[in-house]
Amino acid sequence: MDADDESLLEALLAGEHRALARIISKIENRSPGYRDLVSALYAHTGDADVIGITGSPGAGKSTLVDKLAEAYRDRGETVGIIAIDPSSPFSGGAVLGDRIRMASAVGDMDVFVRSMSARGTLGGLSTATADAVKAMDAFGKDKIIIETVGAGQNEIDIVRTADTVAVLVPPGSGDDIQTLKAGILEIADVFVVNKADRDGAARTVQELREMVHLGEESGLAGGSGGHHGADVMSGGDAAVDETDDEDEGWSPPIVETVATKGTGVETFIDELAAHHAYLVDSGTLAEKVRQRHAEEIRTLLREDVHSLLEDELADSGGIDGLAEAVRLGETDPYSIASDVLAPVEACIENLETETRADGSSRE
Amino acid sequence: MDADDESLLEALLAGEHRALARIISKIENRSPGYRDLVSALYAHTGDADVIGITGSPGAGKSTLVDKLAEAYRDRGETVGIIAIDPSSPFSGGAVLGDRIRMASAVGDMDVFVRSMSARGTLGGLSTATADAVKAMDAFGKDKIIIETVGAGQNEIDIVRTADTVAVLVPPGSGDDIQTLKAGILEIADVFVVNKADRDGAARTVQELREMVHLGEESGLAGGSGGHHGADVMSGGDAAVDETDDEDEGWSPPIVETVATKGTGVETFIDELAAHHAYLVDSGTLAEKVRQRHAEEIRTLLREDVHSLLEDELADSGGIDGLAEAVRLGETDPYSIASDVLAPVEACIENLETETRADGSSRE
Repeated sequence: MDADDESLLEALLAGEHRALARIISKIENRSPGYRDLVSALYAHTGDADVIGITGSPGAGKSTLVDKLAEAYRDRGETVGIIAIDPSSPFSGGAVLGDRIRMASAVGDMDVFVRSMSARGTLGGLSTATADAVKAMDAFGKDKIIIETVGAGQNEIDIVRTADTVAVLVPPGSGDDIQTLKAGILEIADVFVVNKADRDGAARTVQELREMVHLGEESGLAGGSGGHHGADVMSGGDAAVDETDDEDEGWSPPIVETVATKGTGVETFIDELAAHHAYLVDSGTLAEKVRQRHAEEIRTLLREDVHSLLEDELADSGGIDGLAEAVRLGETDPYSIASDVLAPVEACIENLETETRADGSSRE
Repeated sequence: MDADDESLLEALLAGEHRALARIISKIENRSPGYRDLVSALYAHTGDADVIGITGSPGAGKSTLVDKLAEAYRDRGETVGIIAIDPSSPFSGGAVLGDRIRMASAVGDMDVFVRSMSARGTLGGLSTATADAVKAMDAFGKDKIIIETVGAGQNEIDIVRTADTVAVLVPPGSGDDIQTLKAGILEIADVFVVNKADRDGAARTVQELREMVHLGEESGLAGGSGGHHGADVMSGGDAAVDETDDEDEGWSPPIVETVATKGTGVETFIDELAAHHAYLVDSGTLAEKVRQRHAEEIRTLLREDVHSLLEDELADSGGIDGLAEAVRLGETDPYSIASDVLAPVEACIENLETETRADGSSRE
């Protein structure tokens, strides 16, 4: 790490907001040296609660996140927000602009809006988000909220890296719940029916409750205990998601909120806290963190190796020329992949043979 | 390729359905030698029309696909179907079982249901699907339909590899259209409002039409021409998707169908044909094919290199131990990634230096 980055890191650890913003920019732009910076951040992390908030567009996520952040700040806790913006050409920049204005009006709250389109690859966005979380954690934020603007698979993959995931469901027809089933429901630790003063809210709550019960009945887990605190709760105590072992024993509560008026936000905070306490008490937090780190390692390795691949591809004449050769029937993707990787594979094999002959360590 | 695989390939090219099924199984299971088989298939491909059909669960995709296949067969064309099944624990196997029964009732129609959960990785599913399409194409199928059971990002990524993509929209509230905007609408070459005899269908058609117009107004493209043939159509002729250059000049028509009764299927076929004609006439088909091959090459390379990575990870003590070390604060993902890849990078650099010194080719 160069001297500039070292003093930047010191400034971040000393609680300077500008240093945090600059480091997150470096992470986002992958400026030279950002890897060493993030590497150094790790030692200072582990104290923040990371909360993911997702749900279909129009569910009122940003309003609820803003109220949640406000409520945390009223309790004397510091908050950082990372908003994940899907790259759909139909979603405008206006909403995000409003968020930034709002954030800047609140002196010490940091809101960073990450654009998926700007990032390019999914791995890139996911790594950059994880790194920004580390920066906020090292800075000393008590609560870090990862908020998705949309609810696509990519965003779900990112938001599920949080300790606790809240899924917002808008009041509406049963069709919405059916659609949600395709992926978003399985990751919910807490359900929020926002806009609970609208028509259909009671029915949506009822449908969610039935769905949670259904998950319990078909589930393998027979967790014990259960917990209390929500004004609307699922009755049982088994897991809704039979594929996710770590959630055995936790039944997602259903919270009703009217974010625009702040109604239900305190209850929401209580439920988030209850889930965190559950994670700690049951010992599943450690496992969650381990899995997250494994994913971070894999993602980083893949990114690195993908750039190695691009170099190899360029050496082989570039992807466009190769694709055209396939189209013309001169070759096929499998032959190309073998040709491009052959020297790399040979190289690694040689290395392993040599290392074994030496009896020395590879590192 | 061994003698067995060679005679299997010959049997497929001779039009034996059992050979097609066996080769697709080999592709799916990645049996030894499958790469050489697929490699050899490529030379015999390029004649089939590939149609992707997606849309939210409950839109009636499978019924429409069945009717579409029937109608093509009535016209004397051969059809192959590949159904992509999302791995959500909430989606049952019953539906797929029905499809297989239906397919087997129709003598010479091949329906293959690919399970996303069985495949493991996204790249794996995407490659296996592309390879199965190649097998059907080489076999001589006139029409190949890729159908998704759900409409998640992964499935969208796969279905968009088709030449023409039809998006099914169920009649319903405006909320549905809003939700669709997040990603699925941009890939539509043809919209289908299925269950058009239900309440709300006219409103959904109207909303889609407005959305297409909105896309035209905000779009950069001022395509010319337009086309005709649908009973319900968007009025304009510019592109709805400003990020997708190849679709300039094509305005997605909106077709109304009642798949259960077969209503509108002929119109749907006409629109699919019109889009194909547009692709050929405008010269964009070649570009689409080139892009698809580039993606195939990249995906294959990544899969291959990921298995190299897993070997390297195992040599470094396995991912679980590494993740635990990060959790304990002993190291961090960036340091691990550097350590794991260092020997590979050094190796490639040496290779390049040697090659340059030799003045010889790397292949």
